[in-house]
Amino acid sequence: MTVTAGPSRRTGTSPGEPTPSPQTLRRYRRAADFIAAAMIYLRDNVLLREPLRPKHLKPRLLGHWGTCPGITFIYSGLNGLVHRTGHRTLLVTGPGHGAPAVHANLWLEGTHAEHDPALRRDVSGLTELVRRFSWPGGFPSHLSPEVPGVIHEGGELGYALATAFGAALDDPDLLVACIVGDGEAETGPTAAAWHCSKFLDPSHSGAVLPVLHLNGYKISSPTVYDSMEDDELTAYFRGTGWAPHLLDVSTTDDPDGSLAETLDHIHDEITTLQAQCRAGERPGRPVWPMLVVRSPKGWGAPDHDAHGTPIGGTFHSHQVPLEDVAENPDQLAVLARWLRSYRPDELFDDTGRPAADLLSVPPEPDLRLGSVPQANGGRLRRELPLPPLEPYAVSVPAPGAAIAGATPTLARWLAELIRRTEDSRDFRVVCPDELESNRLGEILVATDRAYVWPVPGYSEHLTADGRVIEVLSEHLCQGFLQGYLLTGRHGLFPSYEAFVSIVDSMVNQYAKFLKMAMEVPWRAPVASLNYLLTSEGWRQEHNGYSHQGPGFINNLLTKKASVSRIYLPPDANTLLQVMRECLASTNRINIVVAGKHDAAQWLDLESAEAHCRAGAGVWEWACNDAGTARDPAEPDVVLACAGNIPTVEVLAAAWLLRRYAPDLRVRVVNVVDLLVLAPQERHPHGMTDEEFVACFGRDVPVVFGFHGYPSAVHELLHGRAGPNRFHVHGYLEEGTTTTPFDLLADNRMTRHDLATDAISRAPGWSSRGGTIADRLRADRDAVLTRSYREGADPPEITGWRWSE
Amino acid sequence: MTVTAGPSRRTGTSPGEPTPSPQTLRRYRRAADFIAAAMIYLRDNVLLREPLRPKHLKPRLLGHWGTCPGITFIYSGLNGLVHRTGHRTLLVTGPGHGAPAVHANLWLEGTHAEHDPALRRDVSGLTELVRRFSWPGGFPSHLSPEVPGVIHEGGELGYALATAFGAALDDPDLLVACIVGDGEAETGPTAAAWHCSKFLDPSHSGAVLPVLHLNGYKISSPTVYDSMEDDELTAYFRGTGWAPHLLDVSTTDDPDGSLAETLDHIHDEITTLQAQCRAGERPGRPVWPMLVVRSPKGWGAPDHDAHGTPIGGTFHSHQVPLEDVAENPDQLAVLARWLRSYRPDELFDDTGRPAADLLSVPPEPDLRLGSVPQANGGRLRRELPLPPLEPYAVSVPAPGAAIAGATPTLARWLAELIRRTEDSRDFRVVCPDELESNRLGEILVATDRAYVWPVPGYSEHLTADGRVIEVLSEHLCQGFLQGYLLTGRHGLFPSYEAFVSIVDSMVNQYAKFLKMAMEVPWRAPVASLNYLLTSEGWRQEHNGYSHQGPGFINNLLTKKASVSRIYLPPDANTLLQVMRECLASTNRINIVVAGKHDAAQWLDLESAEAHCRAGAGVWEWACNDAGTARDPAEPDVVLACAGNIPTVEVLAAAWLLRRYAPDLRVRVVNVVDLLVLAPQERHPHGMTDEEFVACFGRDVPVVFGFHGYPSAVHELLHGRAGPNRFHVHGYLEEGTTTTPFDLLADNRMTRHDLATDAISRAPGWSSRGGTIADRLRADRDAVLTRSYREGADPPEITGWRWSE
Repeated sequence: MTVTAGPSRRTGTSPGEPTPSPQTLRRYRRAADFIAAAMIYLRDNVLLREPLRPKHLKPRLLGHWGTCPGITFIYSGLNGLVHRTGHRTLLVTGPGHGAPAVHANLWLEGTHAEHDPALRRDVSGLTELVRRFSWPGGFPSHLSPEVPGVIHEGGELGYALATAFGAALDDPDLLVACIVGDGEAETGPTAAAWHCSKFLDPSHSGAVLPVLHLNGYKISSPTVYDSMEDDELTAYFRGTGWAPHLLDVSTTDDPDGSLAETLDHIHDEITTLQAQCRAGERPGRPVWPMLVVRSPKGWGAPDHDAHGTPIGGTFHSHQVPLEDVAENPDQLAVLARWLRSYRPDELFDDTGRPAADLLSVPPEPDLRLGSVPQANGGRLRRELPLPPLEPYAVSVPAPGAAIAGATPTLARWLAELIRRTEDSRDFRVVCPDELESNRLGEILVATDRAYVWPVPGYSEHLTADGRVIEVLSEHLCQGFLQGYLLTGRHGLFPSYEAFVSIVDSMVNQYAKFLKMAMEVPWRAPVASLNYLLTSEGWRQEHNGYSHQGPGFINNLLTKKASVSRIYLPPDANTLLQVMRECLASTNRINIVVAGKHDAAQWLDLESAEAHCRAGAGVWEWACNDAGTARDPAEPDVVLACAGNIPTVEVLAAAWLLRRYAPDLRVRVVNVVDLLVLAPQERHPHGMTDEEFVACFGRDVPVVFGFHGYPSAVHELLHGRAGPNRFHVHGYLEEGTTTTPFDLLADNRMTRHDLATDAISRAPGWSSRGGTIADRLRADRDAVLTRSYREGADPPEITGWRWSE
Repeated sequence: MTVTAGPSRRTGTSPGEPTPSPQTLRRYRRAADFIAAAMIYLRDNVLLREPLRPKHLKPRLLGHWGTCPGITFIYSGLNGLVHRTGHRTLLVTGPGHGAPAVHANLWLEGTHAEHDPALRRDVSGLTELVRRFSWPGGFPSHLSPEVPGVIHEGGELGYALATAFGAALDDPDLLVACIVGDGEAETGPTAAAWHCSKFLDPSHSGAVLPVLHLNGYKISSPTVYDSMEDDELTAYFRGTGWAPHLLDVSTTDDPDGSLAETLDHIHDEITTLQAQCRAGERPGRPVWPMLVVRSPKGWGAPDHDAHGTPIGGTFHSHQVPLEDVAENPDQLAVLARWLRSYRPDELFDDTGRPAADLLSVPPEPDLRLGSVPQANGGRLRRELPLPPLEPYAVSVPAPGAAIAGATPTLARWLAELIRRTEDSRDFRVVCPDELESNRLGEILVATDRAYVWPVPGYSEHLTADGRVIEVLSEHLCQGFLQGYLLTGRHGLFPSYEAFVSIVDSMVNQYAKFLKMAMEVPWRAPVASLNYLLTSEGWRQEHNGYSHQGPGFINNLLTKKASVSRIYLPPDANTLLQVMRECLASTNRINIVVAGKHDAAQWLDLESAEAHCRAGAGVWEWACNDAGTARDPAEPDVVLACAGNIPTVEVLAAAWLLRRYAPDLRVRVVNVVDLLVLAPQERHPHGMTDEEFVACFGRDVPVVFGFHGYPSAVHELLHGRAGPNRFHVHGYLEEGTTTTPFDLLADNRMTRHDLATDAISRAPGWSSRGGTIADRLRADRDAVLTRSYREGADPPEITGWRWSE
């Protein structure tokens, strides 16, 4: 693709046109700060046209003032920059609790009114805005998907910066400004994210402008970053590869003018670097500018409240700076003086409309921070040109008659997807340096890993414009991907299964974002967040206990059924089917767990499609329901499985039972879509009760070999027919560095364990089953001893033929 | 307490005594590197006394060579330093996969033999060591509790540095060296941890010496930190408050000599700073030294393998540098040449004992890195002097007849505990700046928050020697606490419930450490890891959806039953009882969920003790089992509750039912120890089946108000009598900024919802219950409307008297 030098959509103000003066920006800030303060306190008399009385106050005061004035300062400075440059800018606000500041700006610039006419720019609209904030049924107290221009909530701190980078990837004309609070700066994910510019290609991607906002305090303690001297801050950011600009509002008479000047300088640096890189002269270490703003906490709040407690500039202004205003007339007077100090009469006309000069501050409608299209990325999303599966499918003439690796098979298909999106550049893979290890290396035939800074001589598959990002931080991978998806693109996050729990909490918050976004009518669906979990615990016998842990499934099971999907494809063709489904889906969080090792294959592509469509089903070819013919009666026992390794063990168990107990009527069920197990009222993928009984019977014992913790199946079965007849084998937190078979044995999941359990559960078999159980135990111990001594494992089931 | 200047236990070598020369250290390194390489490859002929043959090789080659030589370089350098200074030193090794290097050093210094004579320093002991590594039943492939001197596994990366700081806290004579790999350095938790020295009081705590080990590559990509130039590294670490020393082994002829010189210099800086601070002259910004070591990846491995693939200095040496050695004679020859390049004959005598000069390298026995007592902290742990509960208990004349806050009550007791440990300094509180917000501020009457660097003028409760650490990083809090507990101390981690999931993965790994440590005979029990989760989701109606999420419980439920405990005390006195139990316990991970708001109190201290001891029980005073007298027959319905808010709602539901349906026989059960619900074979706290039935009946419907996700109860009930008769109300991921009552209503958890459900489930009540259900719905909607409109909430249940 051709890349132009610098932002191409300079549709903004022409060079000669006047842009907001610092004086106007200052007035604009006064208006925004006033509105933000009003949102925290008032439900009426919002322009203070009459004396402030308790009845004008909200019955319950909620909100975070401390960070608001700083956010407005930065927001209005960016307004000016966009005005002057026409550079399309997306704002990611880390301190989401500063929502009043953002709302105030969105109202002033008119984007609020566009999404909801009730929020129009007059006194009734302002009253509505002020009332709605932190009000039941109104706007939440922090940023949320209901707010235009927002792709990041900022409720849980730490992820703004990586999200901003994700938004800038592959969008060369976009500038992503990101406010990082000094509280958030203390978090690990933020600290790691300062290095992200090393992964950002100035030619193919946009720019990120981090604005570290220091105001001294978090909830009630000082902050680490505020305690750093300017020299230390400069050194720190130089060290991470930035050219830092520092601006302390208390050392200048004209903060707005200083900010405008600094932002212009920064913008020049950005566009110069981009032009240089896009002209093919990328420097060895492309250094981007960033900004540090120091301002007092709660800037503009009264110095003291009526009780003499210091407020402005202290942590007491973090939330509601003045309490007991309704009860204490002195306190109410302090509030009234504070609110009037913004002189609202000078800022709004009789109808409550902002003064004309204020209306000139926001850039042209398309460029307002609240209307940047990337913030409603679903509108920009195009369907992925998914390749057909057939050329990549494994030929499986009969169940078990082929050997293949699931992830390597998928990687070839993904490589083609990467080729098909070479021009659109709207599909990315993020991974914590495990692509090769997860046998997905074929992807690197189609693209490289992205790294912009110099790398050691012996490195492979690394270029600035690579579309794979490998960084040893699951947090950064997740942040990148969230920003990328929410701005309308697609992606995949392969990970070692055990370590993906590092992002449990990020997933929790992202699931909330998706759930709420789906309730916002103007938000278009975004591509799903897709995890490919491999190097699963059952094959971490070599890396050991720390690398074993299937709990990510349990965590996703707690999320809203509308967003969560969990797939356990047992072989390569089912993995292809499942992944196609996931990459075509929207507004979901999809977990796909798949094996990377060469293993027996069960289903041809067509059978795989039918099986995945159903989500679960009886594998008739593996059943011994009634000797030679199908029998509508219930079997003696159901052997169920979900997950690639348990599927092998369950099939082997069925095979062992056929040999040792040919009269035992065994049904084999495979579950590929875990959520089919849930009752329909709890998950939309849940089977009907009839379907459930058709698979698992109504009274028959079920021995279930499950990939993860048994508890995940236990919780899903609640409400199903006879949950206690399900005997789930799964990961029991037993494992270390050993052989794969020993790992199965430690967790009572070998074929022999499953077969023994089946015999012991089958009605009427407990007595005759004794001898068989003894044989199975002896077999198991023999394999175990051999495995233990020689590091050998039992043969895979190949050439599966019941006729043999 | 008095604090001496500098390390007091200078029991080591006297100043004049010769310490290992760089030449000897170099030979020592050769020996250690040789052993480490042998561990990866060999099972026999470990000293290469005969030609290397395939039969000498392990059948399965496992291990990570890449980081080993660097670890040995640092380890042996530290040996020299300890030798020279007598400074007791604990080593925290971040890259745990470099276990062979650590094992080799432990064998050479003789600590391995002390724990297991089979690992004695002769050829048989060496053979045993080499064979055991990465072998079923042997040593795991990364560090683990079985390894002497280890308090950190290093399997999942990111937590070494914070753990090291935790170990150094309140142990003024200890030096904690911490190796951070350049892979690990990319993680967020590590990036945040560079600031930890700002929380470390040089007077009362020991020193942390971070050693950033750069070797260029992670699994298959270059690393971010290796791509930084020396200037950038220096700036970065200066910025974070360190005085960095850089050592590149490739730019010196005598790496060992250079390292010794640098370490001596560093040690002088450390002791000078400590002496200065302990003399009362703490500088405003105490800057500690740290070390950056650059060495080639897989340092010492062959340049190329037999296929021409570059090995030494490249990512191909990350794991097993030479593959197919058993099958390919050329490759075997390369391996033999490589192993012989260490000239083992010069390093070991005929019996396999290390040469005399090598034996002189480790410090005196007590000071060897493998025998530092802090690494087996349970041995150092003393019981906490827990204050009696009585003076802090809330007086509860009758259920509901008192109002108190649970966490404020606890805070007063904790403050006394802090006073009682003022001299021993072995109890700490870590918290992400939420102590005040969680209404635990009373703790700050007894101690301060720790912060060593300058803070803004208006700050409260901040001194260098404070025993509370508040940093806005759950990762750092957790890392601090892990290091503190594993070195024999005690602690508490209060957190907003929703955000503690940030450390899900750290908890997973810590649970593994505990489980394995309990299997190691020489490890003494350590104090439990105690979480106090408050600001729970049900009262996050003001902060909103992002602050709601009880999933930490679900995550802990996946851990081994031997380590996991979950308590939901319904009021202040039960919280006191539970917390006393938790702080006295060992080797557990305890979750305690408690409310912070003023609320009705149910149990006096004595009843609370009995209730907590049982874990769950019938609250007879709230039952309407059979009108006026106790009836042994089963009630019509059981109302069960777990958690402070659900307890209020369930009691209110029982009260409503008594008014609206006085004939309905209702039993009320409260569960304080969640794990009593699990069948005994799954958790040691599980009730017997008889106890379970005595609480919940056998066939009777149970309407269960639960604090967290219903799924947590669902999974626990699997295997219990009639799980499907349990109808669990809990958090359904419905919530935003609203009123507390609306939040309950959104999740179908109001008293009215519970009562309505009870009516509808009770046998024979579905028809007569209709009218009652209508009344309950009307009541609910009335409250809801009022709550919605006015921000008002229904009255708490106070003055609970059935007679009224």
